[in-house]
Amino acid sequence: MVVTHRLTDYPDIVPATTALYTDQYELTMLQAALARGTAQRRAVFEVFARRLPHGRRYGVVGGTGRLLEAIERFQFDDDTLTHLERTGVVDEPTLNWLSTYRFAGDIWGYGEGEPYFPHSPLLIVESSFAEAVILETLTLSIMNFDSAVTSAASRMTTAAQHRPCIEMGSRRTHEGAAVAAARAAYIAGFGSTSNLQAGHEYGIPTRGTSAHAFTLLHDSEREAFTAQVESLGTGTTLLVDTYDVTEAVALGIDIAGTGLGAVRLDSGDLLAQAHEVRAQLDELGATETKIVVTSDLDEHAIAALAAAPVDGYGVGTSLVTGSGAPTAGLVYKLVARENDDGQMVAVEKKSKDKPGIGGRKYAVRRRNRRGIADAEIIGVDGPPRSGNDDRALLTPLVRDGEVVGHEPLDAARERHRQGRAELPRTALQMSRGEPAIPTRYEEPVEPA
Amino acid sequence: MVVTHRLTDYPDIVPATTALYTDQYELTMLQAALARGTAQRRAVFEVFARRLPHGRRYGVVGGTGRLLEAIERFQFDDDTLTHLERTGVVDEPTLNWLSTYRFAGDIWGYGEGEPYFPHSPLLIVESSFAEAVILETLTLSIMNFDSAVTSAASRMTTAAQHRPCIEMGSRRTHEGAAVAAARAAYIAGFGSTSNLQAGHEYGIPTRGTSAHAFTLLHDSEREAFTAQVESLGTGTTLLVDTYDVTEAVALGIDIAGTGLGAVRLDSGDLLAQAHEVRAQLDELGATETKIVVTSDLDEHAIAALAAAPVDGYGVGTSLVTGSGAPTAGLVYKLVARENDDGQMVAVEKKSKDKPGIGGRKYAVRRRNRRGIADAEIIGVDGPPRSGNDDRALLTPLVRDGEVVGHEPLDAARERHRQGRAELPRTALQMSRGEPAIPTRYEEPVEPA
Repeated sequence: MVVTHRLTDYPDIVPATTALYTDQYELTMLQAALARGTAQRRAVFEVFARRLPHGRRYGVVGGTGRLLEAIERFQFDDDTLTHLERTGVVDEPTLNWLSTYRFAGDIWGYGEGEPYFPHSPLLIVESSFAEAVILETLTLSIMNFDSAVTSAASRMTTAAQHRPCIEMGSRRTHEGAAVAAARAAYIAGFGSTSNLQAGHEYGIPTRGTSAHAFTLLHDSEREAFTAQVESLGTGTTLLVDTYDVTEAVALGIDIAGTGLGAVRLDSGDLLAQAHEVRAQLDELGATETKIVVTSDLDEHAIAALAAAPVDGYGVGTSLVTGSGAPTAGLVYKLVARENDDGQMVAVEKKSKDKPGIGGRKYAVRRRNRRGIADAEIIGVDGPPRSGNDDRALLTPLVRDGEVVGHEPLDAARERHRQGRAELPRTALQMSRGEPAIPTRYEEPVEPA
Repeated sequence: MVVTHRLTDYPDIVPATTALYTDQYELTMLQAALARGTAQRRAVFEVFARRLPHGRRYGVVGGTGRLLEAIERFQFDDDTLTHLERTGVVDEPTLNWLSTYRFAGDIWGYGEGEPYFPHSPLLIVESSFAEAVILETLTLSIMNFDSAVTSAASRMTTAAQHRPCIEMGSRRTHEGAAVAAARAAYIAGFGSTSNLQAGHEYGIPTRGTSAHAFTLLHDSEREAFTAQVESLGTGTTLLVDTYDVTEAVALGIDIAGTGLGAVRLDSGDLLAQAHEVRAQLDELGATETKIVVTSDLDEHAIAALAAAPVDGYGVGTSLVTGSGAPTAGLVYKLVARENDDGQMVAVEKKSKDKPGIGGRKYAVRRRNRRGIADAEIIGVDGPPRSGNDDRALLTPLVRDGEVVGHEPLDAARERHRQGRAELPRTALQMSRGEPAIPTRYEEPVEPA
């Protein structure tokens, strides 16, 4: 399936502007820089993670596609300007400057779905200071949430091996975040989502059949299953743990026949039950009826079911909350800016526990002769000397203000598949560990 | 300040409909129940938490106000119906039913900002099965996220005592969730937010001055501070840890004078630095200049600074991710429904690790003679026998489909203040513990 829908195809569900998804200090910094005459200095901002979440071996870039659409809608319309004026957030020269704002600079980035490591320069924003600084909050909101979900989802689809994973965490996160989470999960290999808005906005396949409430609505499990099978067909998935699992499985086959699509287990010891239910189904001749499990699964629970006769995993809470790491911890830092002489200079803060590394970054993934990733190589102020097996990681996303990085969602999904396959095997272990490959700084070919 | 803004005052930033923030199975259950003739059975759904997040002593209801607005916008417009038809999610009779859908039932709930405990019936939805079941996902998305933030925020404002807390976590969560988080934090006692959209939508006071990037943009810290003070006034907050804190503090007072509003520390040992900076400021005569601290604060870090000369806390990541509990774990369960004879009957599933308690719930908070909460008393199928000091917890939010529960945000904030003040002192300890009061089921006055 090729997913080509874009948010902007659905203007009725899109806020008119994303401009106020912004921390106030972005605008007050702008005001002070405008007054000082420094706002137009060329600047380079960089998005990176100082570290991966505790014990994670790699992260996965998420949100890039959403960000590009959000930047296109980042404008200060009359309503927004009136609000800022009325509340006195910024002064009149700043309001005037904002009234014509469109980002007109350049953005490079890791492709969405790409694995990343500490200090990987996931996004490089080059423009005037003024143009870039006000994109900080929105950029981080989108990339931090989406990357938290892609990173967790990638581990889950690894643990699930070739069994399909269904995203069903909408109810456990903010309603808008739920849509982004479904999208992020799809990039990292989930096959479908329960979230209808994600189906509408992004064309992601949607799934879902029934909950315990449906069984409880009816006078008996028999009546409920009959109603469901008659309306949704024998290919449906029956939820069999409202009362007694064994009775429900027998009932399901009795009603739907051996062509019943699937049964779903949502409680109890999933490992033991999966074996029991598989044996029962086979005995009843329903050898093709699948078993889907849900119930607070995470990547560890999925891995523990690897040898069980399970055909699909529905994952909710753990997925949308990043499986213990609900934010990716990405930061957006000024790393270079123009000085009085028009020269670009590297800058970095000296804060005690958060030192920066100044300079415009370039990045490649170094691979060994078998095509397996060896190291993340970063060049400062110029591309690192590149070997034959290096793969460049930064691609143009915005050029002179024009978004050039739009792509179908399936392109990100495929990039993730390939990028993950290229990682050393240790990257895919579920246990806590170190980043799977080291990040190294190397001398650029020729300093810029 | 009275905050009276409502989302619906800003139609341009509001999605046209919330109907697809919904799991597919809500609609397939509807389809099967419509076909079976059971969709119109009267039903009671209940929102509750089986347990509090590990070690929490109380939760705080969040999202009610947002939910009521979302329910008002829960309609299936042409675009939505076309999508559902095209993708074959439901059949034509179901599409017809959805095309005229407006929730026409009744909803009762705990007031927003109210503390809650395991099994507190936070929301009671009474209507036909069909009308209520399709609100499940949206209700849980909103209440689970918002309650996770109010619950965490309440602990933070407790730890901060009377010092102001500033919400600044937008960059660490989904951009829409960030706005909801700012709102939730305000309810639980935060004084302001960095998020401009939250200021716009909800009238929450916004704050913010500058980041390290602003200092790094300029040729010297002196130039940066001068630019900021000239543009934003001496009342501004200078960020003093880009290079050397002691030098920056001296520089700040040199430039702004002893009337400098505040300095902000964003790294290092905040406890030691706060003492050093306070001594330095006092020595320089800037006795009124405040010290604001930020840098991955949570309730424990805030509590650890109780004796330090700190005047305000900026809280980000930990707040918007629920301080270790990014979702409240609320569920939406059918607890009663009409049978064939038109009688309401209690229903509950028997799933092994997730048993339910059927029946329509009523709830009061029992208080001792000193007005301190003693227990959460729940009556099933009728109000519990009430003592003089009991406080009823369920109030009407929607009556015959009309929202009657809109209130200014400050009403929820005040409810939280009073509800928390009523809890036994153990509730406010930061350490892990049991729910501060027990939840007890008592015989109703007269069974319904």
